[in-house]
Amino acid sequence: MRIANFCPICGAPTTMRERFGKVRPVCSQCNHTVFFEPKVAVVVFVTNGEQILLVQRANDPARDTWALPAGFVDPEEDPREAARRETLEETGLAVEITQLIDVLHRPDANGLADIVLAFRAEVIGGQLHAGDDAADAGWFARTALPEIGFKTTEILLSRWSEIDGS
Amino acid sequence: MRIANFCPICGAPTTMRERFGKVRPVCSQCNHTVFFEPKVAVVVFVTNGEQILLVQRANDPARDTWALPAGFVDPEEDPREAARRETLEETGLAVEITQLIDVLHRPDANGLADIVLAFRAEVIGGQLHAGDDAADAGWFARTALPEIGFKTTEILLSRWSEIDGS
Repeated sequence: MRIANFCPICGAPTTMRERFGKVRPVCSQCNHTVFFEPKVAVVVFVTNGEQILLVQRANDPARDTWALPAGFVDPEEDPREAARRETLEETGLAVEITQLIDVLHRPDANGLADIVLAFRAEVIGGQLHAGDDAADAGWFARTALPEIGFKTTEILLSRWSEIDGS
Repeated sequence: MRIANFCPICGAPTTMRERFGKVRPVCSQCNHTVFFEPKVAVVVFVTNGEQILLVQRANDPARDTWALPAGFVDPEEDPREAARRETLEETGLAVEITQLIDVLHRPDANGLADIVLAFRAEVIGGQLHAGDDAADAGWFARTALPEIGFKTTEILLSRWSEIDGS
């Protein structure tokens, strides 16, 4: 939600004013300028031979459908660390990030993330069990995929051969 | 600045509470949760044979030193479009983004950006002239670089041969 009716510093009402090349909320009292930042997510492409690691969503949006392990990047967090953390939380598997696949812009239209960083990773430990906001987690053959809930996952799965070859 | 003493929606004071796995500012009146997002920048690596495109900073931080064309990504903006826009604004040159080089995490310590997306690009038009927050812009030989102001630029310049070969 990108709303700043009130100043986060002093609580006074903001007004929209030109600041640094754009019209932004500016505090009417303390002159603080509110900058809105893109929401950044990581998504993790983990294969085991001809199988891909997917998680089943426990929550909306796209509840019960399947997707690559993914999540939002905290402000202070290294995106590769976020990719490791999300995979561990959702699947119980420890992974090593081996490759930056791509940067996608709003692949899903439902306001989930503005920027999606797609990483490839390899399992280096752990035991497969669903956790956090995943209801289930498992390995799926390319020819027997479950119902996919996000465009981001669809896009990356459609590039599987290219990702494998790179 | 990541402060939310007051709710951006209704202006009431916030309190720090556990929400979605972390302690975050939550409005004492309307229950709105404030999420802080990473600040995202793009940096653009443009070569012309053995020369690299650099801009001289007109403003602090690192005023008067040189750096790769770069800037912040707006929330709604495709990062590749941000890379094109910043290069055009700062150097007058139209570029085509040809490659995602890397994603860096806080390469500069002075709070400039949390996530830096580094792109390679090629000039496809325009006339070289400094603009926006650049005091000057020019092509520099690998062996005759000016004073560099940012770690991000230093890191990428140190990888020039690797970037060229990829």
